[in-house]
Amino acid sequence: MEEVSAMLDASLRSDVALLDATNRSLLSQGGKQVRPVLTLLSAGACGGINADTVRFAAAAELIHNATLLHDDVVDGATVRRGRPTLMSILSGPASVLVGDYWLVKAIRCILDAEQYSERVIRLFAKTLSDLSEGELLQMQKASRGDTTREDYRRIIYSKTASLFEAAVLSGAVSAGAPEEWTAALAGYARNLGLAFQVKDDIFDYAGGEALGKPVGIDLREQKITLPLLCALEAVTEEEASAVRAMVCRISDMPDVAVRVRNFVLEQGGVEKAVLEMEKYIREAIFCLEELPSTAEKSYLAELARFVGERTF
Amino acid sequence: MEEVSAMLDASLRSDVALLDATNRSLLSQGGKQVRPVLTLLSAGACGGINADTVRFAAAAELIHNATLLHDDVVDGATVRRGRPTLMSILSGPASVLVGDYWLVKAIRCILDAEQYSERVIRLFAKTLSDLSEGELLQMQKASRGDTTREDYRRIIYSKTASLFEAAVLSGAVSAGAPEEWTAALAGYARNLGLAFQVKDDIFDYAGGEALGKPVGIDLREQKITLPLLCALEAVTEEEASAVRAMVCRISDMPDVAVRVRNFVLEQGGVEKAVLEMEKYIREAIFCLEELPSTAEKSYLAELARFVGERTF
Repeated sequence: MEEVSAMLDASLRSDVALLDATNRSLLSQGGKQVRPVLTLLSAGACGGINADTVRFAAAAELIHNATLLHDDVVDGATVRRGRPTLMSILSGPASVLVGDYWLVKAIRCILDAEQYSERVIRLFAKTLSDLSEGELLQMQKASRGDTTREDYRRIIYSKTASLFEAAVLSGAVSAGAPEEWTAALAGYARNLGLAFQVKDDIFDYAGGEALGKPVGIDLREQKITLPLLCALEAVTEEEASAVRAMVCRISDMPDVAVRVRNFVLEQGGVEKAVLEMEKYIREAIFCLEELPSTAEKSYLAELARFVGERTF
Repeated sequence: MEEVSAMLDASLRSDVALLDATNRSLLSQGGKQVRPVLTLLSAGACGGINADTVRFAAAAELIHNATLLHDDVVDGATVRRGRPTLMSILSGPASVLVGDYWLVKAIRCILDAEQYSERVIRLFAKTLSDLSEGELLQMQKASRGDTTREDYRRIIYSKTASLFEAAVLSGAVSAGAPEEWTAALAGYARNLGLAFQVKDDIFDYAGGEALGKPVGIDLREQKITLPLLCALEAVTEEEASAVRAMVCRISDMPDVAVRVRNFVLEQGGVEKAVLEMEKYIREAIFCLEELPSTAEKSYLAELARFVGERTF
């Protein structure tokens, strides 16, 4: 991870003062860095980390941060990781451009690889396409209140699991992993990513303040996530339609959000979402069985358990 | 160009209704399509167009449109090519995401090439990095009023000429052009791009309504472009400092923009900028001398003359 940090630091030097200062400030904020850790552990589990693994790990983190910068504009977010967003300090426009810059630096990290750069660019290109399609699908659904379970699954796969998958696959590819291991790791990453996003969505209903993210944001943006979907399934169709209609009016009537939130809590939506999240975690760990026993494999399982239990 | 259009159309199909509808609407708006034309003509001038040339031409147009979508958010633009921008119809956030999507589709077009895809991705990656650095430099300078000629040259190279260069080079690369021809075409594209942007900046002072772009936008955003730089050079240092100080206050006092505009017109800033633009055009045409005589070479020279004379 030290090598990854050094690479991020070097990639993001610019002689445009505004950009350089912004990059320094963003880098210092850190974050959980789950994606580069996944890349490194996957390569380790498949035979070993090399210089290309570090490049791909850095690319995964750069892409993640680029999408955060664009998401801040999309969501109008003023706080991220407990600190003011770039958008609220500089401007939305700067967030767009700095995000573009980080995206390009990710592509450059991958191009610098000695092997497999084209294959790995393809992996991340698919993810980038998923990311924007997923956000746009969520936006489309938010205006209509008709999000189904299938929509939700696709949205959280596109928003979160797809990049987990690319991060893990790039690590496996860098280590020259055989097909069965790569497929097993992809299954692990997909389930882990889904669990990770469900957990995030649960935090929006229950105690996510410690994430540095205010509670109730999703509802205010009319986003229907798993706790609400579970609650809707617990009541009659008529009642569910009435709640969906309420969600469509939230942006004009903020007090309606409180009523919908209480509905979710009363119907046990949070507890049911937790059970589904735990199922994804078990599935992720199960996928690892295909891999030979290594310290890295144990850490990957540990990481999955941690995602299930994390309180931040 | 028909093949390029078909490729754009196919690349931008999505089963997310909001995205697909947006893509259709944007594609139907067209635009001048100078960049793909440059790619095709360059390949033609170097021996011939092939399937990869079409892919690279489509990528150049996709990247151009992606940056327009992001620029609309950056500039808060509500009108582009005489029509309302996506930002003003949907939202700034949607513009960011649709821009990201077009960017990724450009990368995918390049990856689909049979030859040279890695080399061409490098070309466009450099351009993308230039584009965001250039916009951020412009933003940084706009808040201080201290834009120099060197800053201006770098900004217009990064914003416009860099993508012209990549479009032309990708065409030459697809045709397997020798080094001297590639270098000559790069020089052509650089000068053409600089002329193109200077012309745009002139339109902001003199008669650009026909571009579908309101006049005086740059000044309102405190951007110091060539006509103003030329006017500042025609007066004493004290007077120039006073005008620069006025520019820094424009966003709070819109009537100051009218005074600065009159200063530029009185000092002959537009005429001097036109002379410099014409010099870039001559230089672009001069670079073509290295190339063998072909119909495409004549069209490239013709295109340069057209850029100098265009009134839209």
